Amino acid sequence: MLAADRVGRWLDGSGPEIGVVVSTRVRLARNLDDVPFGIKARPADQARVVGAVRWVLQEAGYLDSGGFVDDEQLTEERGGFLLERHLVSPDFVKSGLKRGLYVSRDETLSLMVNEEDHIRLQALDSGLNMPAAYEAAAKLDERLEDDLGYAYLPEYGYLTACPTNLGTGMRASVLVHLPGLVLTREIEKVLRGAVSVGLVVRGLYGEGSETRGNFFQVSNQRTLGLSETEILETVTNTTRQIVEHEHKAREYLVEHLRVEVEDKVFRSLALLRSARILSSGEAINLLANVRLGVALGVINELKTEVVNRLLVLVRPENLQAMLGERLKPEERDERRAALVRDTLVQP
Amino acid sequence: MLAADRVGRWLDGSGPEIGVVVSTRVRLARNLDDVPFGIKARPADQARVVGAVRWVLQEAGYLDSGGFVDDEQLTEERGGFLLERHLVSPDFVKSGLKRGLYVSRDETLSLMVNEEDHIRLQALDSGLNMPAAYEAAAKLDERLEDDLGYAYLPEYGYLTACPTNLGTGMRASVLVHLPGLVLTREIEKVLRGAVSVGLVVRGLYGEGSETRGNFFQVSNQRTLGLSETEILETVTNTTRQIVEHEHKAREYLVEHLRVEVEDKVFRSLALLRSARILSSGEAINLLANVRLGVALGVINELKTEVVNRLLVLVRPENLQAMLGERLKPEERDERRAALVRDTLVQP
Repeated sequence: MLAADRVGRWLDGSGPEIGVVVSTRVRLARNLDDVPFGIKARPADQARVVGAVRWVLQEAGYLDSGGFVDDEQLTEERGGFLLERHLVSPDFVKSGLKRGLYVSRDETLSLMVNEEDHIRLQALDSGLNMPAAYEAAAKLDERLEDDLGYAYLPEYGYLTACPTNLGTGMRASVLVHLPGLVLTREIEKVLRGAVSVGLVVRGLYGEGSETRGNFFQVSNQRTLGLSETEILETVTNTTRQIVEHEHKAREYLVEHLRVEVEDKVFRSLALLRSARILSSGEAINLLANVRLGVALGVINELKTEVVNRLLVLVRPENLQAMLGERLKPEERDERRAALVRDTLVQP
Repeated sequence: MLAADRVGRWLDGSGPEIGVVVSTRVRLARNLDDVPFGIKARPADQARVVGAVRWVLQEAGYLDSGGFVDDEQLTEERGGFLLERHLVSPDFVKSGLKRGLYVSRDETLSLMVNEEDHIRLQALDSGLNMPAAYEAAAKLDERLEDDLGYAYLPEYGYLTACPTNLGTGMRASVLVHLPGLVLTREIEKVLRGAVSVGLVVRGLYGEGSETRGNFFQVSNQRTLGLSETEILETVTNTTRQIVEHEHKAREYLVEHLRVEVEDKVFRSLALLRSARILSSGEAINLLANVRLGVALGVINELKTEVVNRLLVLVRPENLQAMLGERLKPEERDERRAALVRDTLVQP
């Protein structure tokens, strides 16, 4: 379905504000009008939705540039692999429902059938690019609505299994890298500001996950009582403010703590290039420091794309998928170190 | 007196067992027969000894290949510099007595006047080489005895200020590097064995000092009731046993924990080559790991001599002497990092 040695186009290091904003994501939650959803959906209902969505994707040509898998192919390992690539949610991986999953070949568009709702559709883009992500999501969304019909009430909007998604059913989010604000200890203040305008801040893998490598996900809290445009604008504008704060923090670092930053960045790159044993967590933290070094121009010999790619490939299931074998944790740490060394080899 | 950018010949990485034994040292404690010593020595007595010893060194030609300095030149900074080079003792640096110091240009022979005794004479050699060190010390010792006359009682031997040095007045010691025994947790057992045959184990800078970088000093405890030959043999034989244990530990590491050892060694070298801020303590620990890597053949591109040299030059007073300026601690850490990077530059 996906090439294990390539990562999504949304990680290619292009697009606006790429030094701070890794990626943009728009996610839509939808349910079919004539099929029970949430806890009322029986297995037969679930299977109907999988079939219906697959049919639309086929008809609309989406399967020409992507693949669709169902429960049988969604093994635990495969689920972990997709989770590490931000293409499915933890709930989807653990779900006991009949599931289906579409992922476009470039990984910018994906659709979970029977996660919490019938349909969870997401579009990803590189850098800060809400309009592009929204457009891609909306295009598939309209086709599905035309062909299948959504549960919708004029006074609320789209109906969802959980009321927190009611209305637009939309979550617009950005994955931001904020080492400057963390190092200058301003991160709390800036994130509180985002929360005060109705946004939510989470770690790298969503709710409750660690903020490893100083990566944060920022998204809208409310889905009801606001238009799609309002949500996209709020998230975009607040992200721009966060980006500005991060740039100021980085300027401060470069002006007042240049040697300390260089020390951290060069040590991190040196460890990545020399370690013989490397855990996933250490790799992510070191790569995050290198990413900062590239953004600051301290490191000129590497591209953000290479670092982004490794940030995905060092994770356990992606590493094993790429190497084509199941490994014990200690073997993984050695093979991970070798992969990173080979990729970051001195020019 | 000494070139700040060169270190002693006894650190040139030559000689027997150099992978484990950094250096050999023989130290003799002596007092003049006709001058009060210890707490009875008045300033006039102290000055007499300084003058007398200097005269002998001059007459015997030692000043042609070395220098003699007295109190005025022995500033606190200079004392620290010499201490870091293992050429004087902490007590000598702090002493309130009228002092004199001879150091040969290659730093293999040195003599403190009015440390605890009138004369503290030491000979250093590279690797495990008791006969060479003893011979060099004994040669100067005989000349001093002939010209000045020592306090000596046939039933005891040489008289010293502190009874722990009575008899031969000799301390024979080796500086050993035992990372293998530390990593395999056998160090306690092996060092207990050395203590049980009458030896003493100390840290890098003598009594009470830290065992930084897994360096240990092993020397004889008793000086009375044993001949010089017996002492030299005991220390040499026990050192050979320690060396054997260390080699076995290293074999074990290479066979069973090769990747872990390589990881430690390559990470250490990479950090030394990339850090922009480096404390003296971190530098010593990382250099010690690299020294192990060179001894094991894991690192082939560096010589032990280069590592030995840096182990001295990274220390605060030596660093400042070499750079020719007094620096604040944070400036030292940056300049130290630069010196280490430049010295260990990738081939």
